[in-house]
Amino acid sequence: LPLAEKSLIRRMRLRAGNTRGIVGIGDDCACIRIPDGQEALITTDFSLEDIHFRRELQPAASTGHRCLLRGLSDIAAMGGTPLAVFLSIALPDNLPQRWLDEFLGGLLKLASKFAVPLAGGDTSKSPGKILADIVVLGSVPKGGAVLRSGARPGNRIFVTGTLGRAAATLAALLRGDKNKIPAPDLNTYFYQSPRIEVGRILREKGLASSMIDISDGLSTDLSHLCEESKVGAELIADTIPHPETDLRFALHGGEDYELLFTAPAKAAVPRRIANVPITEIGRIIRGRKVSLRIAGKLQKLAPAGWEHFRG
Amino acid sequence: LPLAEKSLIRRMRLRAGNTRGIVGIGDDCACIRIPDGQEALITTDFSLEDIHFRRELQPAASTGHRCLLRGLSDIAAMGGTPLAVFLSIALPDNLPQRWLDEFLGGLLKLASKFAVPLAGGDTSKSPGKILADIVVLGSVPKGGAVLRSGARPGNRIFVTGTLGRAAATLAALLRGDKNKIPAPDLNTYFYQSPRIEVGRILREKGLASSMIDISDGLSTDLSHLCEESKVGAELIADTIPHPETDLRFALHGGEDYELLFTAPAKAAVPRRIANVPITEIGRIIRGRKVSLRIAGKLQKLAPAGWEHFRG
Repeated sequence: LPLAEKSLIRRMRLRAGNTRGIVGIGDDCACIRIPDGQEALITTDFSLEDIHFRRELQPAASTGHRCLLRGLSDIAAMGGTPLAVFLSIALPDNLPQRWLDEFLGGLLKLASKFAVPLAGGDTSKSPGKILADIVVLGSVPKGGAVLRSGARPGNRIFVTGTLGRAAATLAALLRGDKNKIPAPDLNTYFYQSPRIEVGRILREKGLASSMIDISDGLSTDLSHLCEESKVGAELIADTIPHPETDLRFALHGGEDYELLFTAPAKAAVPRRIANVPITEIGRIIRGRKVSLRIAGKLQKLAPAGWEHFRG
Repeated sequence: LPLAEKSLIRRMRLRAGNTRGIVGIGDDCACIRIPDGQEALITTDFSLEDIHFRRELQPAASTGHRCLLRGLSDIAAMGGTPLAVFLSIALPDNLPQRWLDEFLGGLLKLASKFAVPLAGGDTSKSPGKILADIVVLGSVPKGGAVLRSGARPGNRIFVTGTLGRAAATLAALLRGDKNKIPAPDLNTYFYQSPRIEVGRILREKGLASSMIDISDGLSTDLSHLCEESKVGAELIADTIPHPETDLRFALHGGEDYELLFTAPAKAAVPRRIANVPITEIGRIIRGRKVSLRIAGKLQKLAPAGWEHFRG
């Protein structure tokens, strides 16, 4: 094996060995106990060089962080708790050892923040670019997962945090304007937090009738939610939280990793949950139309979300 | 999305929709119930073009079959039962739709043979070659998984089936001698069966003290088992089942996907399990040496297993 792979396997083993109750790396499978009364949640997400990330635009530690963020955000969107992480990673021959060390460092730092062990995966030489696939195993009480399909006409629509900053930051990075980006924005983009705690509280309190994470952009992810729920939606442009960014970034920019959820009209949804602002941005309607009310007029809101580095 | 991806997502959805008790593709995560008293098994395996497979050497259906075979074989090696499959796949722009259809056809045919739904995954454009990562979720009674680490000095060593035919067939394919390969051998190589039932019976009857699947070659996988168990081993060359192939293919050739297991000296191990021949090939010893007895002499058996298409 190339040096980078050996080092990776060694580090993965060390992590797994430190974790009680998991037979991890070094066996054919990882064995993991799902807590009594819970069911398993599983999500897989590619992070492919030049499709999902560019090596020159972000530190390796941020790439590792964001690779895991994608999976954790999916667990959050079900109201679940993450239990273990699996990383399949293929590396080109000429990759500096330092890149891999920093990538893993960023990934493991986020994992340890949520007490989630790296319990397995696969390593390989890559036929070209850096290829990572993250698998997150989580759990949720049986039958308790918050699905995309539960939105009903009359439900109110909410988002956590603010939207558009990730896309605005990325656009500046792509323009080569890194120096013009305020340091806090850059840091937020590089090391964003998954909304695990907000998702869990929304599920526990029975507040959310449906939920999805905003990974591809509000317009696209709202359309997914409406499709699964067989409903339409009306958003109010003035209410969408997008401080200091263009509304288009908030509507169509991807990688926000905030939660989009619906709640029954009478539900008492707090203004903050786990210290994260919660904002009402519209309502679910009958039919299948998704619209935006802007400057007093209702216009069609077509899904036009982020497609990463697609041409 | 490119057409190929759309078609893939549609087919994955159809499969997931047909499966009771799984909230599958179309939500942020799949929710899966682990049977009472069982724990989860998880394994992930890359199948990368030009590393793990070559498009010109095998039918797309075989590539899909073998992609899943790798994961199912890992579940078999723990004595587990597969529950669900997740496929992350990235496709180059110019990939013929037919290749993807046949790949998925091969994968789904094997999945349905073991009643395992395709319950999720990820799709993406690839920055280069075809990239697949298969995740298999399985289950095993709590504490009942057969590990690599349970071999003890005095245990006997067994293999299922025969060894070396996969490597011999691949070598002939690489030489361009496809027409000289007997059709049954080609078919065995292309559409090999994972040893799920044998693994499960070995666990249920308490026969195996340790187990691993032979994916990288007998010499390499035996060394993994010995390393995890902190023991040595002596194999008897004359007893290794390798009909009509060179012993070197049986010792070092990869992709056999047979099970290698150890059993206590007094265990009554049948000659066949689930209609698969079981052959005793050596014993576990104290120390850390792994040797081969051949023509009356004991020689060191270094791990020299298959490294796919590594240079």
